[in-house]
Amino acid sequence: MIEINIWSAPTVLWCKLMNMTTAAILVIGNEVLSGKVEEENARYMIQGLRRVGVDLKRVNIVRDDRDVIAEDIRTMSQRFDVVFTSGGVGSTHDDVTMGSIAQGLDLKLVRHPELYRMLQDHYGDRINPAVLRMAKVPEGTELLGLEELRFPLVRVRNVYVFPGVPQFLKTKFDFVLSLLTGTPLILECMHLKVGEDQIAELLATVDTEMPDVEIGSYPRFDTEEYRVKVTVESRDKKQLEEAVQRIKEGLNPDWIVEA
Amino acid sequence: MIEINIWSAPTVLWCKLMNMTTAAILVIGNEVLSGKVEEENARYMIQGLRRVGVDLKRVNIVRDDRDVIAEDIRTMSQRFDVVFTSGGVGSTHDDVTMGSIAQGLDLKLVRHPELYRMLQDHYGDRINPAVLRMAKVPEGTELLGLEELRFPLVRVRNVYVFPGVPQFLKTKFDFVLSLLTGTPLILECMHLKVGEDQIAELLATVDTEMPDVEIGSYPRFDTEEYRVKVTVESRDKKQLEEAVQRIKEGLNPDWIVEA
Repeated sequence: MIEINIWSAPTVLWCKLMNMTTAAILVIGNEVLSGKVEEENARYMIQGLRRVGVDLKRVNIVRDDRDVIAEDIRTMSQRFDVVFTSGGVGSTHDDVTMGSIAQGLDLKLVRHPELYRMLQDHYGDRINPAVLRMAKVPEGTELLGLEELRFPLVRVRNVYVFPGVPQFLKTKFDFVLSLLTGTPLILECMHLKVGEDQIAELLATVDTEMPDVEIGSYPRFDTEEYRVKVTVESRDKKQLEEAVQRIKEGLNPDWIVEA
Repeated sequence: MIEINIWSAPTVLWCKLMNMTTAAILVIGNEVLSGKVEEENARYMIQGLRRVGVDLKRVNIVRDDRDVIAEDIRTMSQRFDVVFTSGGVGSTHDDVTMGSIAQGLDLKLVRHPELYRMLQDHYGDRINPAVLRMAKVPEGTELLGLEELRFPLVRVRNVYVFPGVPQFLKTKFDFVLSLLTGTPLILECMHLKVGEDQIAELLATVDTEMPDVEIGSYPRFDTEEYRVKVTVESRDKKQLEEAVQRIKEGLNPDWIVEA
């Protein structure tokens, strides 16, 4: 499911494009919603997924509430190919992610022998019940990156469980990205001297007629250089070029700001 | 619902604190999820809500997909006192927010006579069907800030509809914030020289026994100055002080990094 190398089978390119890996991110932490800590983990993952061409469908940021997290995990795990969670995996009272994932996927929370041993090795004499709680994971949990990472990454079915500490999340996420393959989006931009109102119908027509092309328009009011930026994106270069051509033909040439 | 001035009735303080305004944010836009544009609207709103003491429960970022937005709007509108949406309200094909809100709340999309007139005034000769689409809003829509704002803010029941252009969102959101009252959280921080493992049980006890106090712990591994930051937050100063006192008494004084 996560290995989609569309170039290995060019004859089924169309089908593979339609089957592109979809993803969702669940950020867990009161500190983000209360504004105590600035969100930077989803931000980092969004950029990484863009680079490898995974189709991110949704980001939810929720509180450290077991029922809330469980409900989101259940829905996301069913609807998307992969789910990435961030936060709530330490040893303190507000770390409820593992229990919530177990609840959401109807799995038991069990002690993982390998994690247990690793925690004992790491903490030595300082081991205590709070720390050992970190060895309890949903049944069927896999450990990834045992060779590559200092501490392995936990995967429960299609849910990848990342720590909230940005430094650790980044290392582990980069490792996961190296396992994913996709087709990155190609982006073309046009800057126009007219407002959205004068191009809306043209863009709607091209967008509707070319389903593999995504057209965006972003008005700006704080610069004199242009009034609206039009973006055209596709994973297919030919389709992209055709869409850009069609838009250019529909515009008054005087409206286009030269690069 | 949005006017909670807890100080006006001190005898029911407890009840009012429990009834604090809850909020959710729905950010709408493919451009944010694809990483083309950095999210800054939720970021701005989170800080504003923190200042006035509104309890933000959730942020969802979703694509320009009518069914997806409608489903989130329905749930958020039922579960939280106020919902803030950002994006998708312009005149182009990807602007589906109004139709989605109508669908989510089971309302008809109707032409708003006042909005229609304002758009005609604004666009003059350049008026066209794409622009006039912006006058279609869910039935029962109210316009707020008719005197205070250059263009009014749309509210549909408890859903406040903000534009995606950050400059406009900020002006309108600041206006809405001025209508909300709450009790801001008070925050105390302690920096400790020990890891989370050695304080987890203490924090869990205080957190469980003091439900109006929220305790967080954030490990750091990229500085020598401290190993973990403990935050204690409450809207009640007395409770906050008591919690801080109880934590300090449970810690070895040598563990605390002096400010």
